[in-house]
Amino acid sequence: MTALRIGATAALAVAICSGQAAAQVQFQNHMMPQPSQMSIDSGGLKLDSTFAVEVSGASDACLNDAIGRAVRRIEMAAGLRHAGRGVAGTTRLVVKVSRPSAPVQSLDDDESYSLSVTSSAAEIDAATDLGAMHGLETLIQLVQPGGAGYVIPAITIHDSPRFRWRGLMIDCGRHFEPVAVIKRNIDGMAAVKLNVFHWHLTEDQGFRMQSLVYPALTAKGSDGLFYTQQDAREIVAYARARGIRVVPEFEMPGHSAAWLVAYPSLSSGTHPDEIRREFGISDTAIDPTREATYVFIGRFLTEMAAIFPDAYIHIGGDETPAPEWKTNPRIRSFMRAHGIKDNEALQAYFNTRVLAIIARLHKHMIGWDEVLTPGLPKDVVVQSWRGVDSLSKGAKLGYAGVLSAPYYLDGMKPASEHYLADPLPSSSDLSAEERKRILGGEVCMWGEHIDARTIDSRIWPRTAAIAERFWSPEGVRDVDDMYRRLGAVSIELEGLGLTHLQSEDAGLRDLAGTESIDALRTVASVLEPVSFGDRFKAQHTDQLTPLDGFVDAVRPDPPTRQWFDAAVKRFLADPTGDTADRSALAAWFITLSGAVAPAQQQIAASPRLAEVSVRANQLVELTTMGQEAMQYLTDGRKATPDWKKKQSQILDEIRNPSALVRFVILTPLSDLVRAVPE
Amino acid sequence: MTALRIGATAALAVAICSGQAAAQVQFQNHMMPQPSQMSIDSGGLKLDSTFAVEVSGASDACLNDAIGRAVRRIEMAAGLRHAGRGVAGTTRLVVKVSRPSAPVQSLDDDESYSLSVTSSAAEIDAATDLGAMHGLETLIQLVQPGGAGYVIPAITIHDSPRFRWRGLMIDCGRHFEPVAVIKRNIDGMAAVKLNVFHWHLTEDQGFRMQSLVYPALTAKGSDGLFYTQQDAREIVAYARARGIRVVPEFEMPGHSAAWLVAYPSLSSGTHPDEIRREFGISDTAIDPTREATYVFIGRFLTEMAAIFPDAYIHIGGDETPAPEWKTNPRIRSFMRAHGIKDNEALQAYFNTRVLAIIARLHKHMIGWDEVLTPGLPKDVVVQSWRGVDSLSKGAKLGYAGVLSAPYYLDGMKPASEHYLADPLPSSSDLSAEERKRILGGEVCMWGEHIDARTIDSRIWPRTAAIAERFWSPEGVRDVDDMYRRLGAVSIELEGLGLTHLQSEDAGLRDLAGTESIDALRTVASVLEPVSFGDRFKAQHTDQLTPLDGFVDAVRPDPPTRQWFDAAVKRFLADPTGDTADRSALAAWFITLSGAVAPAQQQIAASPRLAEVSVRANQLVELTTMGQEAMQYLTDGRKATPDWKKKQSQILDEIRNPSALVRFVILTPLSDLVRAVPE
Repeated sequence: MTALRIGATAALAVAICSGQAAAQVQFQNHMMPQPSQMSIDSGGLKLDSTFAVEVSGASDACLNDAIGRAVRRIEMAAGLRHAGRGVAGTTRLVVKVSRPSAPVQSLDDDESYSLSVTSSAAEIDAATDLGAMHGLETLIQLVQPGGAGYVIPAITIHDSPRFRWRGLMIDCGRHFEPVAVIKRNIDGMAAVKLNVFHWHLTEDQGFRMQSLVYPALTAKGSDGLFYTQQDAREIVAYARARGIRVVPEFEMPGHSAAWLVAYPSLSSGTHPDEIRREFGISDTAIDPTREATYVFIGRFLTEMAAIFPDAYIHIGGDETPAPEWKTNPRIRSFMRAHGIKDNEALQAYFNTRVLAIIARLHKHMIGWDEVLTPGLPKDVVVQSWRGVDSLSKGAKLGYAGVLSAPYYLDGMKPASEHYLADPLPSSSDLSAEERKRILGGEVCMWGEHIDARTIDSRIWPRTAAIAERFWSPEGVRDVDDMYRRLGAVSIELEGLGLTHLQSEDAGLRDLAGTESIDALRTVASVLEPVSFGDRFKAQHTDQLTPLDGFVDAVRPDPPTRQWFDAAVKRFLADPTGDTADRSALAAWFITLSGAVAPAQQQIAASPRLAEVSVRANQLVELTTMGQEAMQYLTDGRKATPDWKKKQSQILDEIRNPSALVRFVILTPLSDLVRAVPE
Repeated sequence: MTALRIGATAALAVAICSGQAAAQVQFQNHMMPQPSQMSIDSGGLKLDSTFAVEVSGASDACLNDAIGRAVRRIEMAAGLRHAGRGVAGTTRLVVKVSRPSAPVQSLDDDESYSLSVTSSAAEIDAATDLGAMHGLETLIQLVQPGGAGYVIPAITIHDSPRFRWRGLMIDCGRHFEPVAVIKRNIDGMAAVKLNVFHWHLTEDQGFRMQSLVYPALTAKGSDGLFYTQQDAREIVAYARARGIRVVPEFEMPGHSAAWLVAYPSLSSGTHPDEIRREFGISDTAIDPTREATYVFIGRFLTEMAAIFPDAYIHIGGDETPAPEWKTNPRIRSFMRAHGIKDNEALQAYFNTRVLAIIARLHKHMIGWDEVLTPGLPKDVVVQSWRGVDSLSKGAKLGYAGVLSAPYYLDGMKPASEHYLADPLPSSSDLSAEERKRILGGEVCMWGEHIDARTIDSRIWPRTAAIAERFWSPEGVRDVDDMYRRLGAVSIELEGLGLTHLQSEDAGLRDLAGTESIDALRTVASVLEPVSFGDRFKAQHTDQLTPLDGFVDAVRPDPPTRQWFDAAVKRFLADPTGDTADRSALAAWFITLSGAVAPAQQQIAASPRLAEVSVRANQLVELTTMGQEAMQYLTDGRKATPDWKKKQSQILDEIRNPSALVRFVILTPLSDLVRAVPE
């Protein structure tokens, strides 16, 4: 048996014995997140028939359904024909769970599991069904070709999460996302062992959760785009069945225009006539000074508590400038009477009142950074969008916290950057006691610029890399290896129904009005959307703007970035050698430049593509730059200072905003230029 | 004003006036189905702002929702920013409808409409909301680039369908299809003016419709995969909102194993213990001789009639060998007592009894060919899977009929073949009275080899071509022009959420385990699935076999077929000329042959792809054949008889079944070979 260090890329020859034949296979480590402990043995389990599933210990419908789904996915991956349900096969899968599944998950649940695969069986041991589900997901990721078919290599894994709170937030307020979108994203979360779906249900731009007590909330505040209570119960059950908690968020007292459209009496002064179409921070706010406000919130949250069984309710609490709190005489007089000195103190008063309601419901409150005001009770959890310092400050004050700042997907950053941001780096100055208060992290998918067609490509596969950050040991941080495994998990996620890989081509076809998009696809492969901030500045969008431009089609962090970066690094290590990288780069530049003319034809024929013309022209400059730089380096020739200066000017020009997209190849290109001797 | 003949490809220069600027644009006729009458005017409506919608005459929620959806699609297509709902824009859309929307559609509804577009407004006139919806779909298909933006060319259209019954049947019995799949297919149907969704809800392999009266039907007969009554009501409402009737089918007395699993007492003798996994015709059948049978069917259909408001209920009725009717002594004795001489007569007795139940529910019966037995009342509609002769025979006997035989999608035939099959060719010998009995046609999507991931690519875009056959005048039958427009409608359908264009790449990525599938995609582009019959013979599949092989990824009738066929025809007209086709074909052969080696690498690494290796090797032979033939023809050289003989042998060999896929380029290739002088 070979013990492996975590993070090592395992590629061991493993002998698979099956009847007479024995085949050598390379163990392919495609697991994401990486388990905390594993050791590889020789041989493996040949997948050549259906599964004979044995469940020992606790067994219930929840666990059995999870096993059934996992078995089906393994059969799909391995191309096995399922001869019939209930018919025992020859591949033994043993699942041992100590305790029956709890109807409601908790932050303290034991999610650990052990997995042992031998040539005769795969066995999963776990305290809870949650651990067993994680073990099943790992098992699926272990299926690989071997011999003439598929195998699961012999392995022993002991695995448990580094953080207890591993979340994904989806903002369904600014743009509504259909139930099917939520479900497939929950499937994706389960595949990479995330365990909290934070459902951002209300925004200035829409109230998305049906209330029977206050039906106007959706009747007036949603354009008819909302989740029925039945939908919500279905999502909660769907998530529970996959080991995922659902934490609902109802934003208050700010980000609440949709509440106020429906119930103007809640307002601190003015209220909008319809839900807000513009994005950005609004001035409207719920009035914290009236008793009726708390009667309303109390009745509403009581209704919601019956639908969302999780121990936490998220009240938002961020970005509440509330200028009317400073101008409304009644509010001013209330503040004076109660010794409330400013808006921050008034919001603290509001939070305390809402917290009392939540406590009465036997639940805990979670809110964004701004809820952390003096006197806040210590059982409130603070979700930090401001950063790791804000999170640490909270921990030192005694508050549990969840980090979100480095995991904003709409920043359109590469997976590597998110991946390396640690919620609790070993360099942190927190004490052991304080460190325990860092519960974990949450990925945030804000909704300004996404709809059902584009959301998946913004979330995936980057979120899988972040999921590894939340689950695996801190030392697992080899970026190249992460990207290698991310490529595999991305395909697995597509198999679950996520559309992150399909949506780019679909968008390009829509823009070009034809199926023939080879050239356009090539141009798109080196471009990605600009960040939320850059788009927000450059394009005046609102909720009703169609999100079907070129910027919506292209994906953040396309695989080209990583490939080109690595290929250039290797080329620069031996620029005069006749290497595979040199040939590959040369061929690639030819493909790129060859695509520009046919792409420009399509761009000219489609007004919605018109703005991309500039980028396509720039691509010609960039390929020329790359080709010339490689030529200099290969020949060992010096470039003129003019040439270098010109390249630098070109790169500067190309870094300017245009068409809401940016090139992902500029850094390696400038490395190439810089490497040319002068 | 220029009057156009239907079927003519219109490409007229149209002047678009917008403020100061006037731009020349080519009218692009992308409509499918083609309208029955149209004339093109000069100028057009520039789409430069939001819509100011005026509804005159009858106005109701159904119509308003349809208009809202259409406006949104036009805005998406034209990249218009919707500044706010309720805010009147500058593009006038006038919709005039004579009568309010009927809650339930009927076969006799007036679906005609007129559409008039000028530089100042688009106006739709229709007797019913159904006609208005068709007009809106036409309007969407008219949006095209013009000037720097988008326009709707000035046009006058008077349009009405050739047939009243234009259906698509989806078999959800053999494989269940989620509600989302049904909905997006209904969207696709509406886009091409189909008006009947025939929902095949029961099969030997599954009972998919919830009954509260007989809950075991789904509890025991569906693996938990079924539509709740709420789902069904939602689908019915969704379809009605899009001008589509829903005709439910409950198969009886054959194809009924799932009924019998749940209620064995209905059986004619034996009954299965679980739903049938194998495909093909089963021997089990409902017992037509017991009164309890009709009590059961009566209660069940009464329950269904409350969910499905359509005037028709489909009882299946096909393929009932029912050997037990010949061997069960009790059934034998009943037949003797009632003078029923054989199985056919017994089924006729059964149909008469069921018809009485349906009549009591104030509905009409429809069934497959086999229901047409002597004495069948004349108000039963016969759906013909046997062919146009069977349909004509029925019409002569006085029965109304719907043609399906030439529209079986699982035959994997090219769109052109379906397109040219006419339900009522002018050559038909039917009398005027009999011709009226041909209500229309129905496309059939049987479910043996489809799942939610692959169904769309089997249905679309081919069904759009058939929809034109059902709607447009008989004389509209230019195949090249159909394919040209099919390319555009295919992109429109993808925009509605259909996955027919995305699923091939997704399947290839899944098989290859990577995003890098350029070579594999090129190989796949010349292959299509074999017919249902060939697959059924070659591969022993059942309901539980994963449908994720190479055959499931590739699409029927890929665009390569039509492109290559046309390019070869043009090349052969001038083989020695230095034409664009010669260059394009030469370049294409190089691309194809270059893809084989990298594709073979991926095939070797993925056992599920292994069988495709043979086809990839054959592709090398085919490209060599094409290149050599072109060389002979270009040089004007003679080939040796040996060369010709060898090519013929290669083609014969390649026509043999392999890997469940077949090449779509063989006919033009053999044309090339045949053209080489000897």
